[in-house]
Amino acid sequence: MTEMTPKEFRSLVRGGTWTDATEMVCRGYAQANLAIVPKEIALEFFTFCFRNPRPCPLMDVTDPGNPHPKLVAPQADLRTDLPKYRVFEKGELVDEPTDITRYWRDNLVAFLLGCSLSFEWALRAANISFRFLGAYSTDISCIPAGIFHGPMVVTCRFVKGTDEAVRAIQICSRHLFSHGAPVHIGDYGKIGIKDLYSPDMGRSDLVGGVIPPQEPDEIALFWGCGVTPQAVAVAAKPPLMITHFPGCMFVTDKLSSDLVVL
Amino acid sequence: MTEMTPKEFRSLVRGGTWTDATEMVCRGYAQANLAIVPKEIALEFFTFCFRNPRPCPLMDVTDPGNPHPKLVAPQADLRTDLPKYRVFEKGELVDEPTDITRYWRDNLVAFLLGCSLSFEWALRAANISFRFLGAYSTDISCIPAGIFHGPMVVTCRFVKGTDEAVRAIQICSRHLFSHGAPVHIGDYGKIGIKDLYSPDMGRSDLVGGVIPPQEPDEIALFWGCGVTPQAVAVAAKPPLMITHFPGCMFVTDKLSSDLVVL
Repeated sequence: MTEMTPKEFRSLVRGGTWTDATEMVCRGYAQANLAIVPKEIALEFFTFCFRNPRPCPLMDVTDPGNPHPKLVAPQADLRTDLPKYRVFEKGELVDEPTDITRYWRDNLVAFLLGCSLSFEWALRAANISFRFLGAYSTDISCIPAGIFHGPMVVTCRFVKGTDEAVRAIQICSRHLFSHGAPVHIGDYGKIGIKDLYSPDMGRSDLVGGVIPPQEPDEIALFWGCGVTPQAVAVAAKPPLMITHFPGCMFVTDKLSSDLVVL
Repeated sequence: MTEMTPKEFRSLVRGGTWTDATEMVCRGYAQANLAIVPKEIALEFFTFCFRNPRPCPLMDVTDPGNPHPKLVAPQADLRTDLPKYRVFEKGELVDEPTDITRYWRDNLVAFLLGCSLSFEWALRAANISFRFLGAYSTDISCIPAGIFHGPMVVTCRFVKGTDEAVRAIQICSRHLFSHGAPVHIGDYGKIGIKDLYSPDMGRSDLVGGVIPPQEPDEIALFWGCGVTPQAVAVAAKPPLMITHFPGCMFVTDKLSSDLVVL
């Protein structure tokens, strides 16, 4: 799957052959978080994402009723081309289908938000050693917009030594569509995380079933996380909201390297 | 005026003391184009700007009815803090007031879009020799959104030699909120400009009343222009649209250097 083109991969997904996570598919291509809301609250959600670009880096926004993401994959169909979805009504999870054609309406607006898979590939390509700890709710407040407000969710990675940490920050700063630069460096207590070794969500890099403790030369870097907009949006209890199923992202036609800045 | 803080300058403007252009005020602070539209078409205008970031680099979006730009100058008031405005009804210019308090309504959404003054300061600071030719309509189509569509307007600057042209491109690429990288290099005929020496608008750098011709070592660089969204929006004939008066920009609290990427 790693060597497939996005078009080939989405065709498998559309045909129902692939309903699993997308972590290792289509190497080098940018993947995206999905959030679909009715037009009535789309301006507020758009504004929320714009005001909070680190957790919510906007890659594409569709016209109401149009399921084709014009900027990042104009031939794709957001109703069928993700492996799995989640459907929320008034903040309650009501369905986890592999196709949302029957939920689609003429007033729905889809937002695609970058995810950290892109800059992780870039870090690996630069031979930067990092390990992923998990995702955490923090006491950093997002800038609210309309009904949308709440705390930022972050991910944590340990990077070895100052040189590699600096290089990691430089590299991910260029990946604005993949959460950009870290939102915090160092002491996790300062952003309201109680226990770094008990992440709220996300697959940690485990050794023997546990997360090995921080070594003296490891620096903790924290990035905005794509779970934030969903958590915030679900808390706002909109009449309808459809998202991707965690890990089952939308694969765009854009190479991550084409989306970097300078 | 060059050494004033944005807060001091806006207070002069608010008091009616300054109703003129802002080109040389508050050195180093980012200035912005203004476009205000009713909530009913704000989602479409927001989407248009998002899809066309070179001509329409979004710096801030207000909540409906709220005249305070939360991100770039939370204490400012967009109804009084610009030297001069233009009011359009159904695409027709109906007023050019110095205050829009009487036009303000609870359903208005204001968009602030970066302008090229910021990267021009950065080019001067880097000792890059350039001259400004003017602004031109082109045959580059903007990506449409809802009622908004039309050609991109660009500005042209001549830069001396490859080394300075490369450096200019590197520098302005970092200024994403100030139109970012050029949209075209070289032959103006390729983007539908008929006569480079008769710009459609904008103050050219004249010598003896004329634009001196391009010298052999001068390279023509073309950037997206902040007139684009207004031209497109006015063509769409929205019931109401309020913009800044050309040259009379909004001065933000953000240093341009704080808005650069990497």
